[in-house]
Amino acid sequence: MQINPITLKDLAALIEATFIGNEGHLITGLNEIHRVTPGDAVFVDHPKYYDKALQSAATTVIINKDVECPAGKALIIHPEPFTAFNKLTQHFKPKQYSSVFNSPSASIGVNSIVMPGAFIGNHVSIGNNCIIHPNVIIYDNCRIGNNVIIHAGTIIGSDAFYFKNRKTHFEQLQTCGNVIIEDDVHIGANCAIDKGVTSDTIIGKGTIIDNLVHIAHDVVIGEMCLFAAGIAVAGCCNIGNRVTMWGQVGVSSSLTIGDGAVIQAQSGVGEDIPAGMVVFGTPATETKAKMREIFALRQLPALIQKLYDK
Amino acid sequence: MQINPITLKDLAALIEATFIGNEGHLITGLNEIHRVTPGDAVFVDHPKYYDKALQSAATTVIINKDVECPAGKALIIHPEPFTAFNKLTQHFKPKQYSSVFNSPSASIGVNSIVMPGAFIGNHVSIGNNCIIHPNVIIYDNCRIGNNVIIHAGTIIGSDAFYFKNRKTHFEQLQTCGNVIIEDDVHIGANCAIDKGVTSDTIIGKGTIIDNLVHIAHDVVIGEMCLFAAGIAVAGCCNIGNRVTMWGQVGVSSSLTIGDGAVIQAQSGVGEDIPAGMVVFGTPATETKAKMREIFALRQLPALIQKLYDK
Amino acid sequence: MQINPITLKDLAALIEATFIGNEGHLITGLNEIHRVTPGDAVFVDHPKYYDKALQSAATTVIINKDVECPAGKALIIHPEPFTAFNKLTQHFKPKQYSSVFNSPSASIGVNSIVMPGAFIGNHVSIGNNCIIHPNVIIYDNCRIGNNVIIHAGTIIGSDAFYFKNRKTHFEQLQTCGNVIIEDDVHIGANCAIDKGVTSDTIIGKGTIIDNLVHIAHDVVIGEMCLFAAGIAVAGCCNIGNRVTMWGQVGVSSSLTIGDGAVIQAQSGVGEDIPAGMVVFGTPATETKAKMREIFALRQLPALIQKLYDK
Repeated sequence: MQINPITLKDLAALIEATFIGNEGHLITGLNEIHRVTPGDAVFVDHPKYYDKALQSAATTVIINKDVECPAGKALIIHPEPFTAFNKLTQHFKPKQYSSVFNSPSASIGVNSIVMPGAFIGNHVSIGNNCIIHPNVIIYDNCRIGNNVIIHAGTIIGSDAFYFKNRKTHFEQLQTCGNVIIEDDVHIGANCAIDKGVTSDTIIGKGTIIDNLVHIAHDVVIGEMCLFAAGIAVAGCCNIGNRVTMWGQVGVSSSLTIGDGAVIQAQSGVGEDIPAGMVVFGTPATETKAKMREIFALRQLPALIQKLYDK
Repeated sequence: MQINPITLKDLAALIEATFIGNEGHLITGLNEIHRVTPGDAVFVDHPKYYDKALQSAATTVIINKDVECPAGKALIIHPEPFTAFNKLTQHFKPKQYSSVFNSPSASIGVNSIVMPGAFIGNHVSIGNNCIIHPNVIIYDNCRIGNNVIIHAGTIIGSDAFYFKNRKTHFEQLQTCGNVIIEDDVHIGANCAIDKGVTSDTIIGKGTIIDNLVHIAHDVVIGEMCLFAAGIAVAGCCNIGNRVTMWGQVGVSSSLTIGDGAVIQAQSGVGEDIPAGMVVFGTPATETKAKMREIFALRQLPALIQKLYDK
Repeated sequence: MQINPITLKDLAALIEATFIGNEGHLITGLNEIHRVTPGDAVFVDHPKYYDKALQSAATTVIINKDVECPAGKALIIHPEPFTAFNKLTQHFKPKQYSSVFNSPSASIGVNSIVMPGAFIGNHVSIGNNCIIHPNVIIYDNCRIGNNVIIHAGTIIGSDAFYFKNRKTHFEQLQTCGNVIIEDDVHIGANCAIDKGVTSDTIIGKGTIIDNLVHIAHDVVIGEMCLFAAGIAVAGCCNIGNRVTMWGQVGVSSSLTIGDGAVIQAQSGVGEDIPAGMVVFGTPATETKAKMREIFALRQLPALIQKLYDK
């Protein structure tokens, strides 16, 4: 998320941390590693990811070790970067809990209909000509474009499933990103679309989503995709344009699916899928090859019997 | 859906189309190809389906080519039959959006309980001795029988996932069908049951459905079926009586599943299943054969090793 | 469930049944076979399960045959034990249907937030520092600990999917158990967690559950488990501590999953999983063995071709 620019010295003071770098160095955003741009502070607490964080576009790194500071960047040394980052999130974007169904700070465009029982959180914006069916929940700060239809019971903006395993409990990374639904999107009933952790979950223009679909934090879906019912897409996936996923497909986290790919029903995608490829199965592989495997497997019991008979 | 009878000439005028046939020829219904009866107008826009539409029970065909008119029928020639059909749907059954939780036009039988947060749309009818738990949504015109229990958060009557791929967007076929829930049905929590596109989605008498189940448009389910949690049934399937589906089963569109069939957990049904058959796997096949395959596959790595060792 | 102690004679009279045993023998609970303790009455109506019921910890057995009474126990003879048990449940714990969003009999701890559209049933207790997001439904008598977060649209306490197949209909076993959510639990959006049939469904301390997850009746989940989105766990499973299940996993009923086990995405668990094991596939087996099968299967089409070519 973007924040009002703050100096390295002042940011470090907020979390009672020491720093390495010019005290006037500016931080203009707080973002998790997979979506960083210059000006951002990012956190890292595992040696495995030190290099990734230090070499990322982020210009400030909150880290739990006194390492060499890359040129042009700054470090903030804190024994618990994850917890420190949560404190900053809470400082810059404190959680609010609206006590009314339609927050007075929400904006709703012309010709848009919000039906009974729908909850529109603080600072939500809804475009023109939308239909928000009964009992849809839109969490604070989410943005809905024009001509969007959201069917009953769908949840837009729940927290990311992003937790750090502490010895005695799981510590949640405080979600401060949003969900952005672009124009002409149609979402079915009882779906759940999580906010990005620090950035945005995006449903691209003209994409159609059926019922009971889960879209995790920071997923970016392109334009004019078709998602059938019961799909679950894990966090940080990048889905191209005109991708089709049939019913009950699952996609593991942080994968890229190219434009025009087709994922057949119940497939479990465990690796990137190139543009235009048609895949099937768990783990999903190119459909024709998969069908040959299925056909071969049907012959296997008799084949084994035959080999034993020899 | 049924409409007040209208002449061919008048119907064609509504969509500014030309027609072939007796101008007094009557149209008494608008239906999509998979559920047509005499008196219906149906639409077709792809040469692949021309014959199916022209030879169907429908007595009026809205088509985008000047073809030979079958005896006793009429044609309406329109460059965009899909869009024209939507206009007719909108004309005969304009969408309404109730602004209250319990529409005054709904009828609720004796001893039926509608709990807080439930939304009962326009012209919904609910029979006797029903329990509609909190935050259940019943869209306009749906019909619920007697002794029906619907658990919290379930959505009855959301739109069909039925869209036409235009170059720049998807055009939705306007849903004008209903959901009919027969007597003694029990539906779990957070399910989603879509309306039929032009006809009815039907849940047969005494059928029991667990939580988080998706039933798509125009599915017809027989009597006393058992559907466990997490199932997704695609559009236009015909499910017989006393069919059992275990958890997370998926069924592709337009399939027929015979009486008494059993679909084991997580199976993906891709073809018709005969009555009484027990199936498993994705794609689902007869369970005993499937188990032999699974057993054979467990031996395959060692078998391949042995063949390589030779 | 626990009941006020009642004599054998009086309990039998409530269901107009005969009994075998000391008429002053006390019944202090009503429980279904998988969760019985001394003092309980249990029911059994199928010869296959007679021995299990008679030898269980339950000290009173409602049975449809005049069998020998085990020492120290009592029998109640009734032609329909299932129906008789339902009558007793209804007598001791009659169903109520709150007509308000927040039952005056519910207790909500300090610093807990209940957002608009959430339904809090009769005698629900919610601890301190909880956040109950909009349109969460908590059925009567469920208990939520401290520091619990439940995201929008999640249903806590819907009925068990537990029905007896009668010739003309399914008879539901009346759910009289509860859901207990322990401290520090985080549940995502649009989940559904059913009550135990007669005992409790339990979500252990610190467990984290993602969106669209189904937890059936009488499931007991340990501490600090991680459940990703789209999971369905069938009734009566016992899940240990620190178990991880990835997206869209399914678990069949009455299974035990040991501490620290990992169930990979889309797996279908059909048998008990030992502590610490990592499993994959449907049916789920140890992951490394499963991966060898998958690798071998990819070679099978070429292998079969080669064998045919010989």
